[in-house]
Amino acid sequence: MSSAFIALDWGTSSFRAYLLNRDGTVQETVTAPDGILAVKDGNFDAVLEGHIGKWDMKLPIMASGMITSRQGWVELPYVACPAGLRSIAAAVHLHTSKLGRKIYFVPGISTRGRDGAPDVIRGEETQVFGATEGGSEHFVTPGTHSKWITVKDGMITGFSSYMTGEVFALLKTHSILGKLMTGDMASPSAFERGVRAGLKDPAGLLHNIFSTRTLALFNEMPADHLSSYLSGQVIGTEIAHAIAENAVGAQYRILATPSLGEHYMTAMKTAGLTVSYGAPDVAVIGLQRIAVAAGLLP
Amino acid sequence: MSSAFIALDWGTSSFRAYLLNRDGTVQETVTAPDGILAVKDGNFDAVLEGHIGKWDMKLPIMASGMITSRQGWVELPYVACPAGLRSIAAAVHLHTSKLGRKIYFVPGISTRGRDGAPDVIRGEETQVFGATEGGSEHFVTPGTHSKWITVKDGMITGFSSYMTGEVFALLKTHSILGKLMTGDMASPSAFERGVRAGLKDPAGLLHNIFSTRTLALFNEMPADHLSSYLSGQVIGTEIAHAIAENAVGAQYRILATPSLGEHYMTAMKTAGLTVSYGAPDVAVIGLQRIAVAAGLLP
Repeated sequence: MSSAFIALDWGTSSFRAYLLNRDGTVQETVTAPDGILAVKDGNFDAVLEGHIGKWDMKLPIMASGMITSRQGWVELPYVACPAGLRSIAAAVHLHTSKLGRKIYFVPGISTRGRDGAPDVIRGEETQVFGATEGGSEHFVTPGTHSKWITVKDGMITGFSSYMTGEVFALLKTHSILGKLMTGDMASPSAFERGVRAGLKDPAGLLHNIFSTRTLALFNEMPADHLSSYLSGQVIGTEIAHAIAENAVGAQYRILATPSLGEHYMTAMKTAGLTVSYGAPDVAVIGLQRIAVAAGLLP
Repeated sequence: MSSAFIALDWGTSSFRAYLLNRDGTVQETVTAPDGILAVKDGNFDAVLEGHIGKWDMKLPIMASGMITSRQGWVELPYVACPAGLRSIAAAVHLHTSKLGRKIYFVPGISTRGRDGAPDVIRGEETQVFGATEGGSEHFVTPGTHSKWITVKDGMITGFSSYMTGEVFALLKTHSILGKLMTGDMASPSAFERGVRAGLKDPAGLLHNIFSTRTLALFNEMPADHLSSYLSGQVIGTEIAHAIAENAVGAQYRILATPSLGEHYMTAMKTAGLTVSYGAPDVAVIGLQRIAVAAGLLP
């Protein structure tokens, strides 16, 4: 069967392009570390052709991720929640590359938190549109900034960003807590202890993380367990807050490979949640569904 | 009146020595940026003599602060809570300097948090012993790691450390939140907004701080207000947790100069707390009281 469509997932730190049949079968895949931050002088055309130059110029490209951010190729405004396939498809932006490729850029989504402040996603909405199966759903996308996304009947109704990954990296690399850490041995028991501490007292994060130092000072935790303990604390703190307003018995899906989502899977199970992994190719499915909603695919 | 005693407050980043009369009047003061981290190769003797060499060799010196930590001159174990003047005085450690000065080192204090993890102070106990007036008291010492210290009839019964100052500096200097900040203009309104956000939802810190980015992205807060807003968020979050188990109507004293304690004063008033500053010389008074309890002064 001939190719019909190119799906492009272009994020901060990675480039992933997929050549698909009309029925959605992936024929070829290109992945590269050429995230948007690695593209010099806005030369997105050249990077794109360098990776998919051999693919048919006439095929429509559906692209999402940080490629539509201020640091990306074309900055698109956010579509406000609630947002479903239809509103996203209506806001898709057609851009023609220098060589004449038609690129349909997918916008990110914005919402307002309980405090009225804005919150944003770019790329995660595409994963969710690829993963949604209907009804009430809760998705988690781990990462530097994790996102907890609530979906009702295929519509994204709200979400929250958590800077957990970035805060952990800062504490480990630059704070006094990192000074006593040795090695990078993963300790499942220290991680779980940290998760439970975070779950129990999420409002006390600024205090509780200090125990990463004092437990070592008092020889009550091995130095090579401290990193796992701290990681557990911040993730446990995140989970406690993220699930606070959800119904008891809610089911969660982690949209990440098991290697990337492992910490969240462990921590969420420790929190007693019902949780599973989404399919690995949800971004491709999402781009395809948006293309169908936009009338680019039948 | 002749000199009777030298009080030495030697911390991480500063050196403060006081020459006192028998009645506690300060005759001379030496302050220098020679905190223990600035002392090379453990050469504390030379730094001390460089600053107080002209003071009588026979006077007893009472010293507290990080000078008794692992990175200091003599590492002393912590005295466990509850701890009052008597138990601290009993644990004072006499060290004779190379030139024959008698230095009495004051140990720090340890406690256990609600989660069973250790917590520690070194130096703040001396400030508290200088400030205590009896009854139930609550003290706050702002800093890189702030401490909330509870006192009952002159005994330190417990305390909690908060890494607020360090976390704020990390977020501002190294995180994505700092990238949009311009200038260092203090905005009282943005600070108060941040404090209220932290007070309202302390468990959501890892989420709420992301609004320092999104409010700027959405042009809802000027870039030069972001630093104040973030500072308010972390301090408000700290306060919400620190006061959670205290009685309504508790009175708080901030042990810091108004220039250093200003943010806490503003934030604690925003939280509706009754708060005042302790006297500026509480460390000297504390060292003197410990000296009396140790029998070095009448």
